[in-house]
Amino acid sequence: VAEAIRTLTVRGAPAIGVAAAFGVVLGVRSAIACGRNPRAAVESALDRLAGTRPTAVNLFYALDRMREAARRTPRDADLEIGLLKEAQAVLGEDLETGRRIAEAGLALFPAAGEIRVLTHCNAGGLATSGWGTALAPIYAAWAAGRAVRVFADETRPLLQGSRLTAWELGRAGIPVTVLVDGAAASLLHREPVDLVVVGADRIAANGDTANKIGTLAVALAARETGTPFYVAAPVSTFDFSIPDGTGIPIEERSPDEVLGDRGAPGASVYNPAFDVTPARLVTAWITDRGVVRPPFETLR
Amino acid sequence: VAEAIRTLTVRGAPAIGVAAAFGVVLGVRSAIACGRNPRAAVESALDRLAGTRPTAVNLFYALDRMREAARRTPRDADLEIGLLKEAQAVLGEDLETGRRIAEAGLALFPAAGEIRVLTHCNAGGLATSGWGTALAPIYAAWAAGRAVRVFADETRPLLQGSRLTAWELGRAGIPVTVLVDGAAASLLHREPVDLVVVGADRIAANGDTANKIGTLAVALAARETGTPFYVAAPVSTFDFSIPDGTGIPIEERSPDEVLGDRGAPGASVYNPAFDVTPARLVTAWITDRGVVRPPFETLR
Repeated sequence: VAEAIRTLTVRGAPAIGVAAAFGVVLGVRSAIACGRNPRAAVESALDRLAGTRPTAVNLFYALDRMREAARRTPRDADLEIGLLKEAQAVLGEDLETGRRIAEAGLALFPAAGEIRVLTHCNAGGLATSGWGTALAPIYAAWAAGRAVRVFADETRPLLQGSRLTAWELGRAGIPVTVLVDGAAASLLHREPVDLVVVGADRIAANGDTANKIGTLAVALAARETGTPFYVAAPVSTFDFSIPDGTGIPIEERSPDEVLGDRGAPGASVYNPAFDVTPARLVTAWITDRGVVRPPFETLR
Repeated sequence: VAEAIRTLTVRGAPAIGVAAAFGVVLGVRSAIACGRNPRAAVESALDRLAGTRPTAVNLFYALDRMREAARRTPRDADLEIGLLKEAQAVLGEDLETGRRIAEAGLALFPAAGEIRVLTHCNAGGLATSGWGTALAPIYAAWAAGRAVRVFADETRPLLQGSRLTAWELGRAGIPVTVLVDGAAASLLHREPVDLVVVGADRIAANGDTANKIGTLAVALAARETGTPFYVAAPVSTFDFSIPDGTGIPIEERSPDEVLGDRGAPGASVYNPAFDVTPARLVTAWITDRGVVRPPFETLR
């Protein structure tokens, strides 16, 4: 499971959290099967999973829950089932979170006519256990019979937009238009787009939001064109221990993701996985506790 | 030649203009060799070349020069040599233009220490006959012994940044760092960058500048971070017949450039080749007649 998270086979902050929770269960199960100490296996699994991705706060939230569940279970014989129940609870809450975000976001869409939404990266079903975060209100609108058009940034370097968002929306029958990341500003200037909605990997106490690299440029273009810019995320994505975005650790990933096997002899690469969109560029945050704005007093 | 321009084998506004000029010569030469009417061949070559790329004003500038040269040559027997001389003049002027842009741009660089420049797409030697436009001052600084670091947006969909800019700078020994287009805003927020310099495909009378898709997002991030944003282009790139950017025709290119052979079944694609950066986001224009700002009275 740690390897799957590190290599982005499982990606999307909520999906990472859920997968990591079940990863702890698998670690304990395997230790028991081999006659090793299950408590030590919990610690080892927590450590290994925590080392996979530094930015997604859902990962640490899920691991804290698993650590606490282990503490609450005094008998070693109960450990596997206790941890499994906790992982299932994390999963169930993620599903419920998607439903609540869908409901909250739906109220922000135009009341009539086609709903035209720009999104970046993938914060849909492939990033969570259910409908996703950013895409959840879109699925809900579509299910309610509304006309929808989603514009999906391809999201270099790993193309989560053209590979994942376009795929899952297409499978659901929702019309989708793919564009290169550099075309988002042009799109917002030239085409009618009602709103931008993106996911988040970590949100600081003041609302500064870490999300997939490229999000900040979309937020700047949204402000320039007067397009509302929303962040959709479970409350668990907020990290109130970090006052603002400068404190969010940003993962730097491999140059190979950018250059692949193309020749740029001697070139170095700048490849941060995330950027930080300042709170002032975000119209509102769509959460499982409704649409919120700083200072987020109801969330703490 | 027309096919090479259409498929971007020859690309970069100044290189397109020079290649098109020689394309007219080849059209006439081939007509003469086959005993066809050389005047008709000029018209046919001009028409075919004009239909290749709608945005690059240098193309139309070069074709107008060739049309005028044909008119100035009354004898059919002199036509080929007259047109060849004119094409050579277009080439010579492009080389001289690069030298003048280099000189003008050099004065905008910091006086001491490493010069750190972000660029988008390729406006270097591979886009012109000589040192290029945006890269010309960088080559000049490097030749003068200055320390330089160039940050090159990869420039999707066709990757002119990672394929061309990184290649030609690397070949010259100039340190270059490649980044995905979506990372430019992050770079300008997190790393010291002295200035942004990009090329242009067409500049309206008020300074609104059409350049490779993604330029506008970089300009917005430059303004946000207080980074000077320069456009480097020959005066021939200005189109004073177009009052502002809304009048610049924007070429829409094939969906295949974005999706390639990746599956996004049913997805449509938004793939404009250029965007328009409003004049107010441009610090100044670096031209072969010096560093200029609106209303460009000295250029008309």
